[in-house]
Amino acid sequence: MSAKTITREDCLKYDADDPLAKFGERFVLPDGIIYLDGNSLGALPMATADRVKHVVEEEWGIDLIKSWNVNDWFHLPQRCGDKIAQLIGAEAGEVVAADSTSVNLFKLLAAGLRMRPDRTVIVSERGNFPTDLYIMQGLIDMLGGRHELRLLEDGQDIAELLDDKVAIVALTHVNYKSGRFHDMKAVTRAVQDAGALMMWDLAHSAGALPVDLNGANADFAVGCGYKYLNGGPGAPAFLYVAKRHQDETHQPLTGWMGHAAPFEFVTDYRPAQGIDRNLCGTPAVISMSALEAGLDLMLEADMTRIREKSVALGDLFIELVKQECAEWNFGLASPPAEQRGSQVGLTHEHGYPIMQALIHRGVIGDFRAPDLLRFGFAPLYIRYVDVWDAVATLKDIMAKGEWDKPEFHAKSAVT
Amino acid sequence: MSAKTITREDCLKYDADDPLAKFGERFVLPDGIIYLDGNSLGALPMATADRVKHVVEEEWGIDLIKSWNVNDWFHLPQRCGDKIAQLIGAEAGEVVAADSTSVNLFKLLAAGLRMRPDRTVIVSERGNFPTDLYIMQGLIDMLGGRHELRLLEDGQDIAELLDDKVAIVALTHVNYKSGRFHDMKAVTRAVQDAGALMMWDLAHSAGALPVDLNGANADFAVGCGYKYLNGGPGAPAFLYVAKRHQDETHQPLTGWMGHAAPFEFVTDYRPAQGIDRNLCGTPAVISMSALEAGLDLMLEADMTRIREKSVALGDLFIELVKQECAEWNFGLASPPAEQRGSQVGLTHEHGYPIMQALIHRGVIGDFRAPDLLRFGFAPLYIRYVDVWDAVATLKDIMAKGEWDKPEFHAKSAVT
Repeated sequence: MSAKTITREDCLKYDADDPLAKFGERFVLPDGIIYLDGNSLGALPMATADRVKHVVEEEWGIDLIKSWNVNDWFHLPQRCGDKIAQLIGAEAGEVVAADSTSVNLFKLLAAGLRMRPDRTVIVSERGNFPTDLYIMQGLIDMLGGRHELRLLEDGQDIAELLDDKVAIVALTHVNYKSGRFHDMKAVTRAVQDAGALMMWDLAHSAGALPVDLNGANADFAVGCGYKYLNGGPGAPAFLYVAKRHQDETHQPLTGWMGHAAPFEFVTDYRPAQGIDRNLCGTPAVISMSALEAGLDLMLEADMTRIREKSVALGDLFIELVKQECAEWNFGLASPPAEQRGSQVGLTHEHGYPIMQALIHRGVIGDFRAPDLLRFGFAPLYIRYVDVWDAVATLKDIMAKGEWDKPEFHAKSAVT
Repeated sequence: MSAKTITREDCLKYDADDPLAKFGERFVLPDGIIYLDGNSLGALPMATADRVKHVVEEEWGIDLIKSWNVNDWFHLPQRCGDKIAQLIGAEAGEVVAADSTSVNLFKLLAAGLRMRPDRTVIVSERGNFPTDLYIMQGLIDMLGGRHELRLLEDGQDIAELLDDKVAIVALTHVNYKSGRFHDMKAVTRAVQDAGALMMWDLAHSAGALPVDLNGANADFAVGCGYKYLNGGPGAPAFLYVAKRHQDETHQPLTGWMGHAAPFEFVTDYRPAQGIDRNLCGTPAVISMSALEAGLDLMLEADMTRIREKSVALGDLFIELVKQECAEWNFGLASPPAEQRGSQVGLTHEHGYPIMQALIHRGVIGDFRAPDLLRFGFAPLYIRYVDVWDAVATLKDIMAKGEWDKPEFHAKSAVT
């Protein structure tokens, strides 16, 4: 962006020139809403509504049990996985959709510890999304306390935490609060140089920016289906295991869908070859079909263009807050574009009621204690003019002191 | 049933007198199909299609992230759980819907072993559904081999396997092949008298027959949402923890939804009080909403009537096979009604092609190796005349030798 004053007309012009603009009409978006929370729950693709209706009314309602074969429900986890693979720099056969991010973290952390039996430390980050830390704690607890969790603090270098006791390092690529991302390749190399395994949580990366797991030589990854992949509320998550590890990976949730021959109904577990051994129970077909529809739409777009627009939207937002809202002293909690995912965080001592006032006016972001206003920019359906209008609304709320109404101080949980 | 010959007209009369007959029209059932596989995938309730459409198009599409509050997605697991509780003799607050049956088995088996630290044996049954056994094997393996699995053989009494090494006994209430059920109260008492915990898998029980977990003093239970509860393909499963154990239960999949305050985003896991600590990741909202619609329909019916009709349908089927198909020497793999769930198994050396021929003619049951033809009778949507027509089709296929066509010998996987 240039240093000259940006106008709403400029933003309309950016939209007119946007090669991704046509994707906007492929989503359902409510009138009067500017939805800057796609980092928490992605919007509904039009095609998903039709797909879900078909799965429910035709595949379940009419084809019934035969759908496992005739509509190939059996391979939904692998089919979705292969589509996700294209978005995260993995090969076909390296990813499956399954369970929740939390459950998948558990599987692969346990498998990773088993691959490093002489090492007893899991490294993560204090600022990681809490469920990642909770899962590590639960796993360590279950294993009898022989292991420990070592946490990277803000500003610390990962190298400071690495030694020959570290079995696995598990980090979220893009931080859920600041949007700052790790250098995947450099961190992975440092971790592997120390003899440990590297697992990435791509919750805020997949579909938001180019990820190259194989290029970085990652060992494991997990991620979320309901954020930038637009897979629907609580969509199944995914997991990745690098090809080179697949037949030495033994995850403990050995349900029948991970068996080499689930329909032989034999007494003893025998893991499937390849990525399939990381499946557990029967997949949630309706939810996973919605995820697949979201993936199909995302695969129509070019990830380089998604990244370009994501950066431009974030930079525009930051510039406009400076230009329009300077007098209210918002802090910037996010790094510059070259280290930032697809979200921008602002800090303000009255962050909570300000966000409530924004939501009341139809600008949907979210708040994270103690003082963070979080704005996500999903390039497939957010326009440049939306960014202008969001900042204009923020300015108006601040100028009128509207945020200070009692109802905006009342607490309510928003994810 | 009387000893006199049963006619199709008799069956039509049973239907005319059936107090549950009105439920049939509440389900989508394809024309020309007699669906005797509700024990594998329940049929689609009409209301579910509308509910799913609403959840997708309105709650997700329009209300977006606010739906966690305004449409109370947050409490879907508890809301479904409380509804399931009514069907299985549990109290509100003792059941949640979550994850898959396999994952829930893992959680509660691990929690149970932890409650009996000085004991090292899990008891189950060789004839249990394989995923149950696989999960036990995976858990034992993960715990380093200190534990062992001890299996009840056919015809053996549970008492023979119990001693002071047994930590937990995990059995499926209704056997997935024979339909035979355990005496829940007697087995639970014997297990607890030996100092062990009792876990029931209700996959083939919930919604099929009256279950009284609290009456039997059960410790734990899990079960499936997609069979007799008609929750849809891969519907979320459920788990039960008796009130008396809830605050001493520590399951290892400590995801954020089981945290005492998930939206405080603190670093350390602190389990929620009560049943909620058994949740893990974000629930699959679309699939779980379909489950809730199935539960709402089931709760309109009286479980005593469901059981009466289930017994009558199964007995009618057995009688008609004797009456119409005696010359083809089908074996009966199921016990009498007082020990039988809502399915009947027949054995035949040509079971596989016979089942394929039946399916080809629109009578949907399933086959389990080596020789079992399995027929489920879901009382809410199966009519007495359907049973007649199914047996008449079987007779016709056998009389004409139609089952022996080459295409019916070809292998295809059906769950």
